[in-house]
Formats: sequence, C-alpha cells, structure tokens
Amino acid sequence: MKRLLITGAAGGVGRVARTRLAHLADVIRLSDIADLGEAGPNEELVQCDLSDEAAVFELVKDCDAILHLGGVSIERTYDEIDAGNLRGVYNLYEAARANGMPRIVFASSNHTIGYYEQDQRLTVDMPTKPDGWYGVSKVFGEAVAHMYHQKFGQETAILRIGSLFDKPVDRRMMATWFSFDDFVSLMERVFAVPRLGCPTIWGASANTCGWWDNSHIGWLGWTPKDDSEVFRAEIEQQPKRPADAPDVIYQGGMFTANPVFRNE
Amino acid sequence: MKRLLITGAAGGVGRVARTRLAHLADVIRLSDIADLGEAGPNEELVQCDLSDEAAVFELVKDCDAILHLGGVSIERTYDEIDAGNLRGVYNLYEAARANGMPRIVFASSNHTIGYYEQDQRLTVDMPTKPDGWYGVSKVFGEAVAHMYHQKFGQETAILRIGSLFDKPVDRRMMATWFSFDDFVSLMERVFAVPRLGCPTIWGASANTCGWWDNSHIGWLGWTPKDDSEVFRAEIEQQPKRPADAPDVIYQGGMFTANPVFRNE
Amino acid sequence: MKRLLITGAAGGVGRVARTRLAHLADVIRLSDIADLGEAGPNEELVQCDLSDEAAVFELVKDCDAILHLGGVSIERTYDEIDAGNLRGVYNLYEAARANGMPRIVFASSNHTIGYYEQDQRLTVDMPTKPDGWYGVSKVFGEAVAHMYHQKFGQETAILRIGSLFDKPVDRRMMATWFSFDDFVSLMERVFAVPRLGCPTIWGASANTCGWWDNSHIGWLGWTPKDDSEVFRAEIEQQPKRPADAPDVIYQGGMFTANPVFRNE
Amino acid sequence: MKRLLITGAAGGVGRVARTRLAHLADVIRLSDIADLGEAGPNEELVQCDLSDEAAVFELVKDCDAILHLGGVSIERTYDEIDAGNLRGVYNLYEAARANGMPRIVFASSNHTIGYYEQDQRLTVDMPTKPDGWYGVSKVFGEAVAHMYHQKFGQETAILRIGSLFDKPVDRRMMATWFSFDDFVSLMERVFAVPRLGCPTIWGASANTCGWWDNSHIGWLGWTPKDDSEVFRAEIEQQPKRPADAPDVIYQGGMFTANPVFRNE
Amino acid sequence: MKRLLITGAAGGVGRVARTRLAHLADVIRLSDIADLGEAGPNEELVQCDLSDEAAVFELVKDCDAILHLGGVSIERTYDEIDAGNLRGVYNLYEAARANGMPRIVFASSNHTIGYYEQDQRLTVDMPTKPDGWYGVSKVFGEAVAHMYHQKFGQETAILRIGSLFDKPVDRRMMATWFSFDDFVSLMERVFAVPRLGCPTIWGASANTCGWWDNSHIGWLGWTPKDDSEVFRAEIEQQPKRPADAPDVIYQGGMFTANPVFRNE
Amino acid sequence: MKRLLITGAAGGVGRVARTRLAHLADVIRLSDIADLGEAGPNEELVQCDLSDEAAVFELVKDCDAILHLGGVSIERTYDEIDAGNLRGVYNLYEAARANGMPRIVFASSNHTIGYYEQDQRLTVDMPTKPDGWYGVSKVFGEAVAHMYHQKFGQETAILRIGSLFDKPVDRRMMATWFSFDDFVSLMERVFAVPRLGCPTIWGASANTCGWWDNSHIGWLGWTPKDDSEVFRAEIEQQPKRPADAPDVIYQGGMFTANPVFRNE
Repeated sequence: MKRLLITGAAGGVGRVARTRLAHLADVIRLSDIADLGEAGPNEELVQCDLSDEAAVFELVKDCDAILHLGGVSIERTYDEIDAGNLRGVYNLYEAARANGMPRIVFASSNHTIGYYEQDQRLTVDMPTKPDGWYGVSKVFGEAVAHMYHQKFGQETAILRIGSLFDKPVDRRMMATWFSFDDFVSLMERVFAVPRLGCPTIWGASANTCGWWDNSHIGWLGWTPKDDSEVFRAEIEQQPKRPADAPDVIYQGGMFTANPVFRNE
Repeated sequence: MKRLLITGAAGGVGRVARTRLAHLADVIRLSDIADLGEAGPNEELVQCDLSDEAAVFELVKDCDAILHLGGVSIERTYDEIDAGNLRGVYNLYEAARANGMPRIVFASSNHTIGYYEQDQRLTVDMPTKPDGWYGVSKVFGEAVAHMYHQKFGQETAILRIGSLFDKPVDRRMMATWFSFDDFVSLMERVFAVPRLGCPTIWGASANTCGWWDNSHIGWLGWTPKDDSEVFRAEIEQQPKRPADAPDVIYQGGMFTANPVFRNE
Repeated sequence: MKRLLITGAAGGVGRVARTRLAHLADVIRLSDIADLGEAGPNEELVQCDLSDEAAVFELVKDCDAILHLGGVSIERTYDEIDAGNLRGVYNLYEAARANGMPRIVFASSNHTIGYYEQDQRLTVDMPTKPDGWYGVSKVFGEAVAHMYHQKFGQETAILRIGSLFDKPVDRRMMATWFSFDDFVSLMERVFAVPRLGCPTIWGASANTCGWWDNSHIGWLGWTPKDDSEVFRAEIEQQPKRPADAPDVIYQGGMFTANPVFRNE
Repeated sequence: MKRLLITGAAGGVGRVARTRLAHLADVIRLSDIADLGEAGPNEELVQCDLSDEAAVFELVKDCDAILHLGGVSIERTYDEIDAGNLRGVYNLYEAARANGMPRIVFASSNHTIGYYEQDQRLTVDMPTKPDGWYGVSKVFGEAVAHMYHQKFGQETAILRIGSLFDKPVDRRMMATWFSFDDFVSLMERVFAVPRLGCPTIWGASANTCGWWDNSHIGWLGWTPKDDSEVFRAEIEQQPKRPADAPDVIYQGGMFTANPVFRNE
Repeated sequence: MKRLLITGAAGGVGRVARTRLAHLADVIRLSDIADLGEAGPNEELVQCDLSDEAAVFELVKDCDAILHLGGVSIERTYDEIDAGNLRGVYNLYEAARANGMPRIVFASSNHTIGYYEQDQRLTVDMPTKPDGWYGVSKVFGEAVAHMYHQKFGQETAILRIGSLFDKPVDRRMMATWFSFDDFVSLMERVFAVPRLGCPTIWGASANTCGWWDNSHIGWLGWTPKDDSEVFRAEIEQQPKRPADAPDVIYQGGMFTANPVFRNE
Repeated sequence: MKRLLITGAAGGVGRVARTRLAHLADVIRLSDIADLGEAGPNEELVQCDLSDEAAVFELVKDCDAILHLGGVSIERTYDEIDAGNLRGVYNLYEAARANGMPRIVFASSNHTIGYYEQDQRLTVDMPTKPDGWYGVSKVFGEAVAHMYHQKFGQETAILRIGSLFDKPVDRRMMATWFSFDDFVSLMERVFAVPRLGCPTIWGASANTCGWWDNSHIGWLGWTPKDDSEVFRAEIEQQPKRPADAPDVIYQGGMFTANPVFRNE
C-alpha cells in the first residue's frame, strides 16, 4: 500500500499501531486530536478533530486504507461521544466515499456486547447488548459500516477489540486479551485479502478461556498465536473477586456498572 | 393510565395515534416541533424540539407512559437525523430516567433491516441491515433502549413499524401494511401487560404475504386481525414492477436506492 | 379399545377424564389412592397405591391403554413425591412392560420448565428447568418414558399439562389454559394414530398469549380449538400484579416461589 | 401471459392442469409423449419425447412460461427415469436458456425426502433423503434448477408435490393431500409475482396433520385453503395399518419399500 | 479451600480423586458406604449411607466444597439406584442448603445420553436419552442441580463423566476416555473460578475421535491435554466388533443392551 | 482387506491413490477407461467403461471395498457427464448391491457447493449449490449413496474432494488443498471403522484459511495434519486477483464461470 491512515494514533491502541504497523505502507498518515509528537521516517502527522467534516475530508485524501481508531474509547458524556463516535463516523465514511472508498478497519468494541454474561459463547450474528453510551456509539458505527457496504460497496473490517495490552492486567482480561502480535498479523491479513466485504471480527488472542467464536472468519487465513494462559499464575495472585461483581458476571466488566455521565 | 405522552404527534403515525389512542389515558400529552392545532378534550399540547434537553425533560414530567414517534421518519441529511433521532433519543431516555421511567414505545422502523431481500423471513434476533442514515439512526435508538433496560430497568417496546396507512398503496406495502386497528390493539396490550421488558415487535398486520415473524411476542396476547390481501385485486391493477427494481428486491424498498443527502 | 386405565382418577384432571373419556373404550378402569365413589356403567374401580409394585402390576393387567394421571401434582415433601412420582412411575412402566406394553399417556407438567420466563417461546427440545421437587419428579418420569421407548419400544405421549380447568382463573392461566374439549380431542388422536412413538406434547389450548410451540406434533392431526382470549375481559378485572411477582415473571408461576417442604 | 407450456399434460397432474389453468395464458401449449386427445379452444397440442433434444427446443419456442410435469412420476427402471427425468430435464433447461428463459415450475416430489419419518416436520433447507431412483431423479432436477438460477438467472419454482388428487385416498394422504384449488391458486401466484427466484415449495394443502413447513414462502402471498381433515371420518373407516408399515413410518410411504426395477 | 468433601471415595473414580486431589484443600473429608482404609495425612474418613438424611447432614457440615461421586455407578435394581442416586441426591442437596451451599461437583454420566449414536456430535443442550435406570437417575440428579441453582443459587458443576481410567480399554473408550490428569486440571478450575453457576461439562479428554462438544465452557479456562489416539495401535489389536453391536452403535455402549434388573 | 477396487485409477486422484494406498489390501484392482500401464506387484488392471453395466458388474466382483474415482471430473458436455457420472453411478451401485455391498468411498466434489461465497463456512447439511453440470452430477451421486444406504444398508463415505495436489497452485487452493498424506490417513480410517454409515466428508487438509467444517466426523478419528499456510509466501507472489473474479468470490472458483458445453 502507498498510504495508510491511522486515526486516533495518540491513543492506547493507536500508539501500538504506530509502532507495529509501519511496514504495511510506504507512508503512514497518523492523526489525532491530541499531540502526536515527532514524525518518524515514513510518517505524516495530521492533527484533526473528527467532528470537523472538512478536516476529515482532507485527512482521508490519497489514502489507500484506513485504520480508524479515533474517537472516544471509554464511557464519557453524550456530547463527547457524539463528537467523536457519531458525527466522527459520519464524517469518516462520507470522506471515504468521496475518496475512492479505501478499505477501512473500524475499531469497534466488546462493549457492544458487554451485557452478555461471561459464561456465554458469542458469535458475531448474535444481537448486540451495549453496556453504555460508548457501546451504543459502537453499535452505531457498525451499522454505518454495514450500510455503506450494502449501498456503496465500501469495505470495512469491523474489529470488536477486546483488551489490546502487552499482557492481561486482571482476571477479565484473561478472556479479552488481544496481543500486539496477534493484532499485527490480523491487520496484515485484512489488508492483504483481495476481497474483504464487511466482516465482524473479534479482536482477541487465542485465549483458552476466551468467549468469542471467530470461526466465521477462518477464510481470512488469520490465526492468533498468543494465549493469556501463560499469565495465569501471575493473575491468580490478585485478590479473588466476589461472585456478584460486574467484572465477574458480565463480558463488558466494570463498564456495565458505569452510570451515564451527564453533559455539563 | 393518567397521562400518556405522544411525541411526533403531528406526523403521519402521530395523527393516527392522536385520533385512535385517546382512550388509553386520562390525559394525552401531544408534542411535536410542528404545529399541533387545537387541543381536544383530554389533550395537552406541547411544542417541543427533541434536541433541546431541558425542553424534553419538561415534556416527560408526570407522564406514565410514552409513545415516542418524534424525530425524522424518512431519509434526510445527517444534521436533521442527528437532531431528532440521535440526540433526541438521548434526551428522551435521560428524561425518562429522571422521571420514574415511564414505559416507552419506541417507534423503530423496517428500515433497520431494509437490505434483506423480500423472499427472506425475518426474526427480530437477526442482525440489522439498515438501508440509509435513517435506518442507522433507528438501530441506534434500539441499542439505547436495550442499554437502558439492562442498566436501569427502563421498559421499552421497540416497534419496527412497517407501513401504517389506512390501506396499502403499492405492492411492497402488501407485505408491510400495518392497519390502524392492529396498531391500536397492540398499543392496548403493550400498556396493559404487567411486565413488558424490552421486546422488539414487527409493526405489521396479519398480511398473508408478510415477511416478519412475530411468534416471539405471542405472550403479549396481541393478534393482528387485518390482512392486506383484501386489497390484492386493487393493487394488482398497478403496472407491474421490473424484477430488478429496489422495491421488488429489498424489504426496505426505494429507501435502499436513496443516496446520502449531504448537509448544506 | 377394550380397556383404558386411568390412574389418579379421583384428582382434578382425573375427574375430567372420567367424565369426558368414557367413549374411548368398552371399559374404563379407574384407580386412585383416594375414594372413587360409585362405578358408572362401563367403569371398573380399583383403589391402588402406586408405590405398591404388586398392586400396580395387577392394576395394569388386561389394559390396552393407560392414561397415567396418578401421583402427586403439586409441591410436596420428598417422601410424598418419591412414593407417587418416582417409585410409582417405576412400578407403572415395569407393569406395562410385563403386560404387553399398552400405550401410555404420561401426565407431565409445565413445572418441568417452570423457570423459563413468560416472554420466552418454548419448544419441547429445550432443556428442562424444573421449578421444584414436583417438577424434578416429572423430568424423571419423562426420562423413564424415553428410556422405555428406546430400550423396549414402549410408546408414551408425554403430556406437559398447563392448566386443565373449565376456564382460566388468573392471568397466568390465560397462557396455560387447557380446555376440557381440547384435552378430549387430543386423547382421541393420541390413542387413534397407528404409530405414536414418544412425543412430548404441550397440554394447552390455542391461547393467543400461549408460550408453547406444538408445531412438532402437527402430524398427530390434533388442533386445539379453544382460546383463553374469550375470558380476557373477565380476567383483566382482577387486580394488576406487580411486575416482579413470580407469577408474572416465570412460566411456572407461584411454584417458583415454593420452598422445599421437608419430610417430617 | 401469451403462451404457457404444460409438459406431461396427459398425466394425472397434467390433466388437472389442463382443465384448471386455461385462464393463465392466451394459449396453452400442451405436450406429452402420450396422446392428448382433441385440442380445446385456446390449446396447442404437441406430442414430444422429452429425451429428444431438438424436439424439446422446438417445444419451448415462443413460450412465456413452463409448467414442467413431464417425465416419469413413479418408480421405474433406470432407463425410463433417465430418458424423462435426467436427459429430459437437461433438454428442457437448455431449451429454456435458448428461448429467453421463460419462468419454469418444476414438478419435484415428496419422494426427494421420502425417508424422513412421519413425525418429523420438514423445512426445505433440510438435506434430501430420496426413497428410490425416481426420488433421486427429482433431487437431480432440483439441482439443475438451482444451477441455472445461479449461473444464468433462470427462474424456477421447485414444487415438491404431495398428492394432487381430488381427495385423500388413504391415511398418508391426509398429510400430503394437495387440492386442485390450492394448486391453482399457487400457480396463479407463482406466475404473477414480479420476481420469483428459485424457491422450493411444498405442494400440499393446509392439512392439519401435514408435515411440511411453507412459512419461508409467505412472501408469495399464497395461502392454501383446503384441509384434509374434512375427510377424516371417511379415511378412518379404512382398516388400521400396522405400526411398522412403510406407509405409517415414512413420509414417502410405500415408495420406501420399492425395490430397484432393473432394466431389461 | 479448608475442607473438601469427596463422597463415594471408595469407588473407581473416588480412589483417583483421593489420590490426586489432596492439594485442593487443607482437609479432604472422604466418605463411602464401603470401607475407606486408613486415613492419610490431611484426610478425614466418614462411613456414610447416602440414603440416611441425618448422616448426610452431618457429613456435609463444615465443608467448603463437595465432589459428589457417591451412589450407584452402573445399572442396578431400582431399589439400589433409588437409595444412592435419588434419595441420596435429595439428602445431599438439602444438606448443602442447610450448610452454606458449598460448591458441588455432581458426577453425572454419559449414560444420560447413551442412546445417541456414535456418529452424532453432542452439545449439552440437546435432550437427554438415558440408556437405563442408572442413566435416568443421573437425569434426575442434573434436574435437582438446576432446580437448586435457580431456586437457591446453589452452584454445581454437572460433570458427565465418560470413562475415567488410566487408559482406554476398548474401542468405545477411545471416544470417552477421561485421563486422570485432565480430571485433576478440571477440578482445579471448577473450584478456582469466582463464579461457577450450573454448567454441564463433558468429562472427557481431548480425544481425536471424541463425540462431545465442550466449547460452551471455554470460559472456565480448562483445556484437556490428553488424547486417546496414543493408544490407537494397541486398541486396534483387539478383535473387530460387528457393525451392529451396541457398543459400536450407541454412545452408551453395552449399557443400552442392559435389561432392567428387578428388585428381589 | 483382500481386494480394494479403485476406479478412475488413471486420473489425477487415481494415480495418487494407486501409489499411496497399496497397503490397504492384499490386492488392488485398478480400473479406468484409459490405459493403466503395467500392473504393479499386488495390482490387477481392468479397462472398463463405467457406462457398460455388464462390465461394471464384472469389475466389482470379489471386492471388499471400492474407491470410486471414475467418471468425469471437470465440466464437460452432458453426454460425457451422463455416461460416467450418472449411468456410471447407477451401474456401480447396482453392481455393489449384487456383490455383497462392499464399502464405497464416493468421490464427490466441492463443485456440489461451488456457488457459496468464500467468506461462508459450510457444514455438510447445508443445501447444495452446484456450479455446473459436473457439480449437478455429483449431487446426483450423493443422492444415490444416501438412497442405497437407507434402502439397502449400503455404506458410503461421500468425499467432497477439494484440491488433491502435492501443493496448492493458486490462492483459492490455499482453502481447498487436500494433501496426499491427509487423503491417505482418511482412507485408512474410513476402511477401518467397524461402522461407517453414509457420512459426507470434506476432503481438505487442516488449512488455516479453509471453509469447511468437518467437526461432525470427529468420531472417525481422523485428523488432517497439513496446512496450506506453509505455502503462503510462495502463493502470495502470484499477481493479485481482482475482487470480482469468480475464483475470488466463489468456493467453486472458475467453475462458476463455465458455460454449458453443448453436446456435438
């Protein structure tokens, strides 16, 4: 690829992507509303507010592919979620449509299904159960991706990210952990296949105690290699959680216990 | 019931609700952004912009139940859809939460699943396939309803309205027609049952050629009585549609052929 | 048929059976642990304790068919349930096996699935969820029926009776009501078909608001004709039940709130 | 329609079609390998061997629609089945492809699924279980219909005919009966809908004790009106069949007991 | 854990448990109706008849967890099965309820589903098909576990044990083998997870030719490591079994050929 | 086994079978319509036209097992397909029936399901979607196998071969590749199991990017060992295929783009 756009590049996942995906394109265009520091060798840096339509149109220009990590990634006020995750998605898809429909990876979240219990095994065709306004905004984004695929042929990999960390930090992440290596190998496959369509993909490693069934995307040729089980002993040293704690009951963990954060 | 709020009461479905649901409560509070004419005997009229949070909080006060028809009901620009169907839904659910969580009927739409083909039989647990930004906004609203139900216990009947008209006006409506009588009897049951939860309901009559399976809400005790088939002869006099017309292929009909209407 | 045995003939369902099924056989043999009054024209009366193996062997002799209503039909101590519903079933099936394997109708119960919620539509192949020791005993009986069918070819209609009353007496029975006429027509079909096998049948009328799907036994040629909806107005005059009452939440109704009754 | 071709018009179903479907087109072209008698007012008669490719090409010319009843309809030698039902189908579909792809109704059969037992409820997407070479030939024909639909867009209604008789003549037909009126109303709908695709349809009336689920073709707007149950009393006077008779066990009835008829 | 009760500790599985699970608790309380020999370092021995209610209440006292292996584990007379597997289970669950509801592992059996054929892949939500009275008693026990979970919150791991042996001893055990190591690692996980609920678990190793799908309990974080295939060569030296032998046809093997053993 | 017949032994798969399966029987009888060269040590060579009934009866005599690879294996004219794949199958199954019903492996094909798209995961109970007349002929053969199994007890392993090559030669074969080793190990298991029945088996290796779910034949004890992924780097050097190419869209690859080859 010539140019890959990574939005939200200053965020947690964004920094991993910046570090680990440089080989995917001649130029990596990085954007965020926050500061991105110094540009690396094959990097272009663009500060950009996703709720600014004109800016987003400019941002998407000349890109062959987009990894859309931008927007809010935890529970926030409606106004904040609206700006980044609703209007921001509208702007991004319209910009993509106006610029040759580069393939998109849309960072969705396990919080689209956070109210499923931890003893349930999920497939992507099960109804969503968002666990807050953040989760609702991701259901919205997934719907946009499907609609643009059917109406215009825009391709998107809808990636329901579990927990992209260098290792799991609590018991729940034993199930949701998505290792950097597995993330990278998935990105390689998603941008390599001649025909992507609009699949939903669980963004998680091959965790023994995982909840999510990715067998429907076997055709992608992606096999996650990491398993959180290697951190089992370490994690089990944490104090035991009570059986009725939200992070023990629900896949969405503590998000299910979030209140609504009211606009000021 | 003491007071039933009907939003969007000046719209097509709203006018039917105003005329036919007066018996459901001592007082019917009607609201719309448009003019509502003169108040009838047990009516309260409130002009209200759903995107105005304070106004919506005021509107919902003292209501035992809400029939939420307000917002945009056809494809429009993103700004218009945002105001009524995204922020408007946020405002409504927050207002309901602050006011004792009156039972809500949320007017969703068949355009949440518009890209399914007409020879497919749908159940409500199948993935959505919205056919435009309007449909996307209704997927958003359904997600909000589910989230408020799980997080706060707010009850909503998600009503995916087909075509609420006095009779079908084209071939596609033979499948989607929702008669006034059947709408009324459904509203009666939805507000009568002691426990509603958050079911999704296909808003359509008992049309012989219908696409939607309501067997999951048998427990409601609602049986639609009308069947579009009585209008068959009349409808078949319309010129035959080509086999590749969007209204012949897709459940969402001509909406699937809509472009995106850009903001000015 | 020459001789039909009806056990539990002094109970609620038994008395209906005694009155309404006389035409099914030349002789009706009625049994109960309680007094059965005077024998009618084509009746044989046998007082019998189902936990007495020898007595049950005697009871079953020369019968072409058995309607097994005997045993405990509400929540009781384990000892009582054991005598009638565990050992009693053992005795009955062994007696049937020793006596030419007459076709059996086994009165099971909706309390085998009582912990399903009222907004769930059930098919008979869903896992059981008994709501007490009585329900557990009926799961046991169903297992016995299946085992004798596979091992010996013994035919049984497993009848999960809802509420066999002349009319529904509370809101929950609007869903579970099984009219006398529909019970009779089902018994006629069950004993008429040349090959019965071991089907599970929901014993309920064609109630608009019913929960149970009998489409798998369409082949029997039985169509219930009654619908509890004709009693709707009458029932709705009862005081409204709270949304969190067991009889509003669960299919098993108040049984789900039963404690365990301890043996003395 | 201008011209409807009915093949196999001298056969049992063919004679019904000839009598009852004359109103569907200006001209009815009837063909058979057997004698067709005198032509009626709007009839064209063509004697034709379906295994003769050139003759079939000629036969199909200028037809807007085809009701393909031709070929063998009971168990026969392989040579006979081959001529009419294998090569005959090849000839017909190639002829249709060369002549503007008129819409086809393909007379398939319940013998494609004859080895299912009578207590099973079938949907059309269940695997086939043919009960003889005749049934195998119909599986073949169905596969041809699907292949021509996917490859060329040829539309076919695959009609798995039960028992098209003026009334059921034995117990099994209580389930499989397809009344003349219901057949006619189905043909009307199949040729009227603007887009047919390639659906499989169970050709049976609304028999209370039927085995086949047609809910997937609700969109056609066809509702069978007849029910074999009106003949119940009459049929039940026939001697009872043993429980292990093929016509009591299998949906295909006595066909399941057929040997293979060897070529001479 | 402070104290783990293992019932049936003198039986086949019990002896493995005694040897291999000592590390799970400070004290292991072992019980059986048979002699248990000498107590080991952290062992308490209690001779106990499970049909004796008072004795079972005493037995359960002060235990944090129970591995319930007690009762009959092969086909026996009804009286024997009743004492250990029906009344014994009643006593155990009531004792647990009276003593703080320690987590239970209930030893169920593949004989709950013994009449499924060996070419069928089973999930735990498929209907049971017990292959004798022993299997029926285990269906009963599973129902009790579910009922106590729903009614009282009692947690149970329902463990459908295949063949817990040091290695497979016949062809059928190639599919059902449950290695000691895999049993131990499962017990560790079952007692470690903060929330267990009431899952059904197939007790089998990762046998290549296994029949049972444990994917629904992936969340437990248990992965069996052993595979019977390493014994393939050895097993294949046994004389070939006829295709119609019960142990070749049915998952329950020779149990399906058992008669009923009559009480004396 | 004493004697294994391999038909089509001069074809691509046949030559592999000839080389690699010699250990399965004392004598390997090889047949083809084409020349088979010199007989090896334990080989019998028979030139045979499968459409010649008498010859096929002779061919099958004294065989314990048949690997039926004969007939046409790519798209051809109807006459060619008829001779080898329709009449040829009739002849083979009748010959088997007359000769003690030796176990058969029937070489079916992925072209029975060629019109499924590459992002769909298939199980064998999904409806067929043949991609040409060759695929239709294999649907026919599968139907014959099922019918002979139900009617006569004839056992067949229906093997839907993907791409039996020494390594994948294009992108599509990354999913369909069936290594020689995996083919051999499957043949060993198919002929070793005491009871085969009539399973359908996907003939493919354990390719990471495979489309086909073989979990239903776990009971066979066969685990493919090879994975096309080892050839990924090599294959990815081929020029990228356009997203709308038939071999990118459909599982059947270029076969879906085949015309019908008309008889001369």
